[in-house]
Amino acid sequence: MMKKISVFDEGKFSDNKFHSFLVHDSEHFKMINFTFKAGQSLPVHSHDIAGQLSIVVLSGEGEFLSKDDAIAARAGDVLISDIAEPHGVRATTDMRVLVTIAPPI
Amino acid sequence: MMKKISVFDEGKFSDNKFHSFLVHDSEHFKMINFTFKAGQSLPVHSHDIAGQLSIVVLSGEGEFLSKDDAIAARAGDVLISDIAEPHGVRATTDMRVLVTIAPPI
Repeated sequence: MMKKISVFDEGKFSDNKFHSFLVHDSEHFKMINFTFKAGQSLPVHSHDIAGQLSIVVLSGEGEFLSKDDAIAARAGDVLISDIAEPHGVRATTDMRVLVTIAPPI
Repeated sequence: MMKKISVFDEGKFSDNKFHSFLVHDSEHFKMINFTFKAGQSLPVHSHDIAGQLSIVVLSGEGEFLSKDDAIAARAGDVLISDIAEPHGVRATTDMRVLVTIAPPI
């Protein structure tokens, strides 16, 4: 199994709400692409299960959110978090983010 | 567990050979950052085990390599491959790539 996805082509920006699409889903991991217009956010949330996730900023700037904190995030920044740990993203410019969840939810 | 890594700061380019460093390693997944100078490559290889990997191009241009083929790859492109499938990367410009392996090797 081998496939290529161009997320800069497939990830569209939306004025109403962040846009997301499933890049990959298997028994091994799930990958989701998010595009945020400046000011949009993925609110802080968590799932009470085992596993971890990564959030990779592909372009733009914003913040990684935790329960009580906001950490500056720009292209090339990676957040690693337990799935059970509250996490979120807020965009201060238009922003592209790739989330990987393993094992998949 | 929550941590942030700025791979654009930590990933250095080397004239001799591509540079790599471990971004994350846990029971859930392993993430490795690669920086390639133009012309450098990660030769085609595979491991005869279960699991999949993603290769995310953060910047630059090059090719995703398979056993018999080369697929154009630029920032925002993602390759998903079985770990057991032969895969590699060749850079045509300076190039930054993030590899995630789940479950970790």
